[in-house]
Amino acid sequence: MLLVADNLQITRRDMAEAIRRHQPDPIRASVTRLQAAGAQAIDLNTGPMGRNAAEDMAFCVAAVQSATDLPVLIDTANPLAVKAGLEANRKTVLINGISLEPKKLDALLPLAVAYNVDVIAYLLDERSRVPLLLDERLSLALELFQRCQSAGLRRERLIFDPVVAPLIWQDGLQRNRDLLEIIRRLPELLDGPVRTIAGLSNLTTGPGPSAAKRRLEQAFVCMLASSGLSWVLLNIYHRETVAAALDCRMLMTGHLFAWQTVFSEAPRKS
Amino acid sequence: MLLVADNLQITRRDMAEAIRRHQPDPIRASVTRLQAAGAQAIDLNTGPMGRNAAEDMAFCVAAVQSATDLPVLIDTANPLAVKAGLEANRKTVLINGISLEPKKLDALLPLAVAYNVDVIAYLLDERSRVPLLLDERLSLALELFQRCQSAGLRRERLIFDPVVAPLIWQDGLQRNRDLLEIIRRLPELLDGPVRTIAGLSNLTTGPGPSAAKRRLEQAFVCMLASSGLSWVLLNIYHRETVAAALDCRMLMTGHLFAWQTVFSEAPRKS
Repeated sequence: MLLVADNLQITRRDMAEAIRRHQPDPIRASVTRLQAAGAQAIDLNTGPMGRNAAEDMAFCVAAVQSATDLPVLIDTANPLAVKAGLEANRKTVLINGISLEPKKLDALLPLAVAYNVDVIAYLLDERSRVPLLLDERLSLALELFQRCQSAGLRRERLIFDPVVAPLIWQDGLQRNRDLLEIIRRLPELLDGPVRTIAGLSNLTTGPGPSAAKRRLEQAFVCMLASSGLSWVLLNIYHRETVAAALDCRMLMTGHLFAWQTVFSEAPRKS
Repeated sequence: MLLVADNLQITRRDMAEAIRRHQPDPIRASVTRLQAAGAQAIDLNTGPMGRNAAEDMAFCVAAVQSATDLPVLIDTANPLAVKAGLEANRKTVLINGISLEPKKLDALLPLAVAYNVDVIAYLLDERSRVPLLLDERLSLALELFQRCQSAGLRRERLIFDPVVAPLIWQDGLQRNRDLLEIIRRLPELLDGPVRTIAGLSNLTTGPGPSAAKRRLEQAFVCMLASSGLSWVLLNIYHRETVAAALDCRMLMTGHLFAWQTVFSEAPRKS
């Protein structure tokens, strides 16, 4: 399970200012800290972008890649910005992401094909909603898979996001149990290896005591790992959650066990 | 996932003395503390028993049951002691447990049938070893299941223990990944609901740093829960592990989520 940092805080005031002035240093510093904390990929969520969306995204991708070799997830629904990010890319970028929502599918999927990059596909319907039932969510996966294949995307480029539900939703518990099942069943449904990603912070969205939030995050990241999740998007500064994720990765994919390894895998101080 | 305390410390000097003199108070006090710490069943492991095995077990079961209504797991391979425990029982007891090892199967299985109690069945071969391969372990489950059915045990009386491997075993990681798979596959293999139990402390048996041990325990208990484990045998005083197990139980089986519930489920101080 690969750890994707969701906390490049582009919307923070100093970062927004750095982007406006195209000064890379604050972004570079932030990226260096995320990598030191254990990030293995970085989600570049620029928030709502103004009229300079394309230029700003190109600048951001270049700034991040000047500080790290880690994969960068271009996390915006603005197709012009996505295209500019793909053009600016000198290392590895992904598109985050598409769904069956027409404006995303029609605008972003062709870019993923043209630039031959990985793309995250959300199991959301045409109106960007998570269907209620497990079977409906699996049907969405099949439809998205077929649409992507028809568009010429190589199957190994797809990373499915079955969408973690906030626990405070009326049916949040059941939806997340279904999500574990979806992660487990996708390879059989799509007849081959399937990569998956999940955004952990969704689980505890909304008001709530932070200690209990962290504890539920830690429990759920282990359950996700146990289902075979490939990538997890999380706050890389939640150190106990990161430690739990690393422990689970070792339990799920390690070959030789040694206490030495458990320790060296602990995240470094940010 | 039901929490079974593995730490009724009968082998401690004061407890051993209490048993020798048949003084119930130390046992009663210990049981009360375990229940307060969140135990939902209590493993009564008497260790090696002397020539008064039967009388001592009868005394222990009565002592434990005088302090609690929780189910008691009679955890000994001595058939005379098991029988005495079953006779002394006034509430709920289980036999812990049988395997394909002839002396256990032949002596203890008939007792489970005669007294109509739940019995834990270890997936161990005739020589009490854990087979190397997943398929061999599943075959053992099938054989044990059939042997129990032939002996007249009702299927719902069986609780399978696929045996957690110490991580320090050469193939400990793979064996525990297989264990998660076994828990998940047993219901299909045996064509109906199947209860399972796992002894968590086995995971980190041997020397090793205790903080890392606790962390791995917490991660693994969540993975076990995610596979559908019914009962977990653990040190009920490992409070963070207990909290993780309770969180997972809520995530796996809860209906309505509320932060209030998450808090009230936290274990009380022992």
